[in-house]
Amino acid sequence: MDFSRLFSPESIAVVGASRDPGKIGSVILKNLRITYRGKIFPINLNTEEIQGIKAYKKVSEVKDPIDLAIISIPAEGVLSVLKECERKKIKFAIVISAGFKESGSSGLKLEEDIKKFLKTSKIRVIGPNSLGAINTSPSYNATFIDPNSKPIEGRTAFISQSGALLSAIVDDATLEKIGFSKIISIGNEVDVDEAEMLNVLLNDEKTGAITLYMEGLEDGQKFIKNAIEVAKKKPIIALKGGKSKMGAAAAESHTGSLTDNNTSYDLAFKKSGVISVDNIDDLFNFMRDAPNLKIKSDEIVIVTNAGGGGVITTDALSAANLKLVKLSNNIISELSKVLPKEASLHNPIDILGDATPERYKEALEIVSKLNKPIIVIFSPQETSLPIETAKEISEIRLQNRDLPILPVFLGGARIEKAKRYLRENGLPAYSYPNEAVDIIRGLYVYGTFTPPVYTAYNKNKTKVPKVSSKENLFGLSAKTIFDKLGIRTVSGVPFKNEAELQKAVKKIGYPCVLKIASNSIAHKAEVGGVVLGIKNNEELKKAFASLKAKVNENHLKINGYELYEHANKDNRQNIEILLGAHRDRQFGPLIGIGLGGEYANLLNESEFVLAPIADKDINEFKNSKIGKIISAAAKHKVFDELVDYMISLSKLMESNPQIKDIDINPIMTFEDEAIATDFKIYN
Amino acid sequence: MDFSRLFSPESIAVVGASRDPGKIGSVILKNLRITYRGKIFPINLNTEEIQGIKAYKKVSEVKDPIDLAIISIPAEGVLSVLKECERKKIKFAIVISAGFKESGSSGLKLEEDIKKFLKTSKIRVIGPNSLGAINTSPSYNATFIDPNSKPIEGRTAFISQSGALLSAIVDDATLEKIGFSKIISIGNEVDVDEAEMLNVLLNDEKTGAITLYMEGLEDGQKFIKNAIEVAKKKPIIALKGGKSKMGAAAAESHTGSLTDNNTSYDLAFKKSGVISVDNIDDLFNFMRDAPNLKIKSDEIVIVTNAGGGGVITTDALSAANLKLVKLSNNIISELSKVLPKEASLHNPIDILGDATPERYKEALEIVSKLNKPIIVIFSPQETSLPIETAKEISEIRLQNRDLPILPVFLGGARIEKAKRYLRENGLPAYSYPNEAVDIIRGLYVYGTFTPPVYTAYNKNKTKVPKVSSKENLFGLSAKTIFDKLGIRTVSGVPFKNEAELQKAVKKIGYPCVLKIASNSIAHKAEVGGVVLGIKNNEELKKAFASLKAKVNENHLKINGYELYEHANKDNRQNIEILLGAHRDRQFGPLIGIGLGGEYANLLNESEFVLAPIADKDINEFKNSKIGKIISAAAKHKVFDELVDYMISLSKLMESNPQIKDIDINPIMTFEDEAIATDFKIYN
Repeated sequence: MDFSRLFSPESIAVVGASRDPGKIGSVILKNLRITYRGKIFPINLNTEEIQGIKAYKKVSEVKDPIDLAIISIPAEGVLSVLKECERKKIKFAIVISAGFKESGSSGLKLEEDIKKFLKTSKIRVIGPNSLGAINTSPSYNATFIDPNSKPIEGRTAFISQSGALLSAIVDDATLEKIGFSKIISIGNEVDVDEAEMLNVLLNDEKTGAITLYMEGLEDGQKFIKNAIEVAKKKPIIALKGGKSKMGAAAAESHTGSLTDNNTSYDLAFKKSGVISVDNIDDLFNFMRDAPNLKIKSDEIVIVTNAGGGGVITTDALSAANLKLVKLSNNIISELSKVLPKEASLHNPIDILGDATPERYKEALEIVSKLNKPIIVIFSPQETSLPIETAKEISEIRLQNRDLPILPVFLGGARIEKAKRYLRENGLPAYSYPNEAVDIIRGLYVYGTFTPPVYTAYNKNKTKVPKVSSKENLFGLSAKTIFDKLGIRTVSGVPFKNEAELQKAVKKIGYPCVLKIASNSIAHKAEVGGVVLGIKNNEELKKAFASLKAKVNENHLKINGYELYEHANKDNRQNIEILLGAHRDRQFGPLIGIGLGGEYANLLNESEFVLAPIADKDINEFKNSKIGKIISAAAKHKVFDELVDYMISLSKLMESNPQIKDIDINPIMTFEDEAIATDFKIYN
Repeated sequence: MDFSRLFSPESIAVVGASRDPGKIGSVILKNLRITYRGKIFPINLNTEEIQGIKAYKKVSEVKDPIDLAIISIPAEGVLSVLKECERKKIKFAIVISAGFKESGSSGLKLEEDIKKFLKTSKIRVIGPNSLGAINTSPSYNATFIDPNSKPIEGRTAFISQSGALLSAIVDDATLEKIGFSKIISIGNEVDVDEAEMLNVLLNDEKTGAITLYMEGLEDGQKFIKNAIEVAKKKPIIALKGGKSKMGAAAAESHTGSLTDNNTSYDLAFKKSGVISVDNIDDLFNFMRDAPNLKIKSDEIVIVTNAGGGGVITTDALSAANLKLVKLSNNIISELSKVLPKEASLHNPIDILGDATPERYKEALEIVSKLNKPIIVIFSPQETSLPIETAKEISEIRLQNRDLPILPVFLGGARIEKAKRYLRENGLPAYSYPNEAVDIIRGLYVYGTFTPPVYTAYNKNKTKVPKVSSKENLFGLSAKTIFDKLGIRTVSGVPFKNEAELQKAVKKIGYPCVLKIASNSIAHKAEVGGVVLGIKNNEELKKAFASLKAKVNENHLKINGYELYEHANKDNRQNIEILLGAHRDRQFGPLIGIGLGGEYANLLNESEFVLAPIADKDINEFKNSKIGKIISAAAKHKVFDELVDYMISLSKLMESNPQIKDIDINPIMTFEDEAIATDFKIYN
């Protein structure tokens, strides 16, 4: 749908505009008066005029059409105002009012009522509990941030779930002269959410990069879908608050949104090409530079006038899994012609402490030809000329518009002006090497992102069974489902008594395994419900007797017994694998594969992918530690089989939304086959 | 020895003082004239007067005693000037001159000559290739950094191996008003090195914390020894350049020092209580705050006026392995009396967006009683009063001088003055939560550091054999050494021919293992030199024949053959361990223990400790992942045995400095014993 009237309204009503300068409705009106050139209609029941503008009692009293309503009145009145706005055919409303789900159950009720109304209405709503929104071109500031924090125009959009962080960041950005295209405090997301806002910003020509502060998502799959589309055109950079368990608990206590843990967000960001940052300062650097830099290579050139600076930068590159370009003999020979003989011609290129601006220029001209990202380190030394050096760097950039040049100017007073010069000329300018490296790392991941492709997933023609049970399924009751799914499992037969057991063992043979059957006891071995390695009838009888005794003794609730073949007959097993699935509240099914058996808990080596499984997920799994362990232990065929099982499990989870978790552990891998031997489905 | 005349000289000679303002000798003289109140003697062969001061041709011409000589003349002349200084009984010289080992073989020769001279002389030398040294009280600046970068007095000392980084950091510190006690550009360390400088600063009352930028060390053990002594009194914070392999290569190309990799430095820093930082900005924050903060707890309180700020801070604490204090009901009840009902009373304590300075004060007064580190988040919101809030925070600090309070003021223009106020009042003031968290993490590690104790090491009474061989020792020739060392090994017998083999197998029994004996072939299995699981005489004969054939076929250089017992007779083995040692160039022996067998290379799970092994090394090993894996697989006794083996190996490496590496792999662990089955000593 068309959001142009949200960002370019011809008229704005401020419902709850106030004459009291301490009131939010007064600050919003003031900010609008300073920044907005369209018509403003203050709405207030008790006043004729506010801040020199004629006021109206209701939006319906306004004769002119209204594009956008900013609502800042007590929570209880918001729904009826929205209904009025709908009647007045106002297209967009931003609800500033707080007192909704963030403040407890009565607020939650008010919010639910608004949601219900919005289902059948045409008006689109941002908030409630929003700080407002800002556009810089055409300009309006419909927020209650301090009027002294004046956002300037730039090419970065910022969507924030925290109003306080938004105002802090905007304040800092004003000081640092970082510009924005649009700033949206997304609030409680009763209607418009981050995912939809991404879609809006996708086609916004004024926006070159989108930054996000988020704490939770209602619809993770929608976010991924939209983010993938955006990532084809512009980078998204997200700071997710509450990634740690401790942080998630903190987030829960201050907003209404439940947050999940690290893994699912990391996977979702990776899947959709979103650059994930951990700290506000990182987010800040991306706000400044993401629209202006394109990084397509992970091989970096360093030009430095300080050896130590080159060393630290190289350490930082290494920690970020980036590389140094290996310079060709040609380049080295060209460098040798312009640099003193003491210079180090190998990357990092040390052009020495007495480097003049011209020396920087000559070295940069040569390495520009490589078309790789260049980090330029400048440390103010005795004869250094900071501004002049900055000018030469800008010149090089002018000649190579698409070349990513990242100057790092170490020092304080002596280099301040030079840094300002660089920034005013559209270049980054960092204080420390790791800042440049973090930017390169993030933009490289984005720059080489490709949308997911599902060849293997589509090739897998497994007929996915429908799981009708609402109960947990353990043992044979789960095995039948995996059998249908095409996963190779051990043979097993249910039985109730000695006579059935004797029939069962004729099918299964020796050695065999005896287990209790139960859909409530998840860990049968722990209650003594498993006997392994039964070699003959005598042992079998003894095992059954002891199992029955255990059941009586511990009053175990069982559905009967199960007899399995012993998969690892002649100790030929290599390693044990576990294959599992978990339904994430935000992002849906996660498929996990890891070391099983005794190493499972000790080493905690596993790899997760988000369903549906894409080709590149499979590729990454192959190159992961656990992927390599499996490759080393089993043949190619077995490895491919396990990958296929992952896809099948992904499909099972997608078609059966009531399944919460799946555990197949262990899958015994042999040189040329893999056999699942224990099974659990949690519904 | 007494270094007081280095830092409080009554007179300074500047050898190479110059009238040419572009020359280093001119800048040094200028810096001294501005900063130093003692007598200055410019030394220059061709001038009578420089910058208005009488100049001398040689130090010997000066009648007065001279405490310190600053030497800035071409490299070739330095040795003879040092000899003159020695004759003049000058106690200290700082050699600024470059052109020594950093510039190639002829420079290296000059440096070696100076070293030789210094062995028998009394003068103590810093440099060459130093930028100089600075003291702030009493004041002198004997460097050639830009006179506009004026270091101010503070309680942090800074020792740097990179002159360029030093001048950049001093410039930045001047702007940010960070003070120093002493600044030393340590140069090529021909005489005084970091370790000795630590010793000097240990008893310097003006120094409360020591910061280091280092790229390499000549004598790692001396560094550790001195650092441990310093750590008892004041924190050391080190940024090690060239930690990564890539970075080490970069360091090598720009200084003379070879650097080693990550592990050994990390272990050395841990052993000696040194706080290790990775980035210049971290080092910078420690420079400012390390002398003023004592952190003894890893449980933190957060007080915030922004929910999002609390969430991000909690994420950062979690990532740094720190915790949130769990507030008692008493504290919660006290908080509830002063905070609005919407406030979150659980840590992080959210005192809401409209928090007044008084509300900060009241909340802080309550949580101060916990005596835990407090992070105070301030985000500038509509009604916030930054300065007044800063004042209340300072008040709380005044009442609790030892309480670590770490304010984080988010934002830009609106909070600048408040941050300055905090810093002027001796409090930290950070822009981002992760900065406060990094400081707490580092100072907590330091604050809970205890010097190593060697109870277990001393209790181990192993008679350490002397290894005389200069060749590598593989197989039985190494086994005898480990046997003497008390490590339990498989039985093995050497033999040359069929007859000896038959005798050997009578001792060893079946099943057995046949190997070629060679001190040059490290990986015998790879050349087909091993036959496992021989069950009877027939198989034995066949195995020996095939081994002989392989030797002939591949022209293998062998010393004979070896027959071993098969340790894992009835497949009762649990896991395979590898135990090894490596001699690090800087820090001496490293002892490593990890997973052996097929998992060794795949999982790369191992733990390293620096010899000699301290009690806390053992403790950490027990709590490490690999320690837990071993505990789970074997009995207590076996675990203790392995720990004892590590100590023995440590002693073997210490007593036999020609041993470069040791590999015992695998050690098979059974439920109640551990047996080493393959052995290599690299000399």
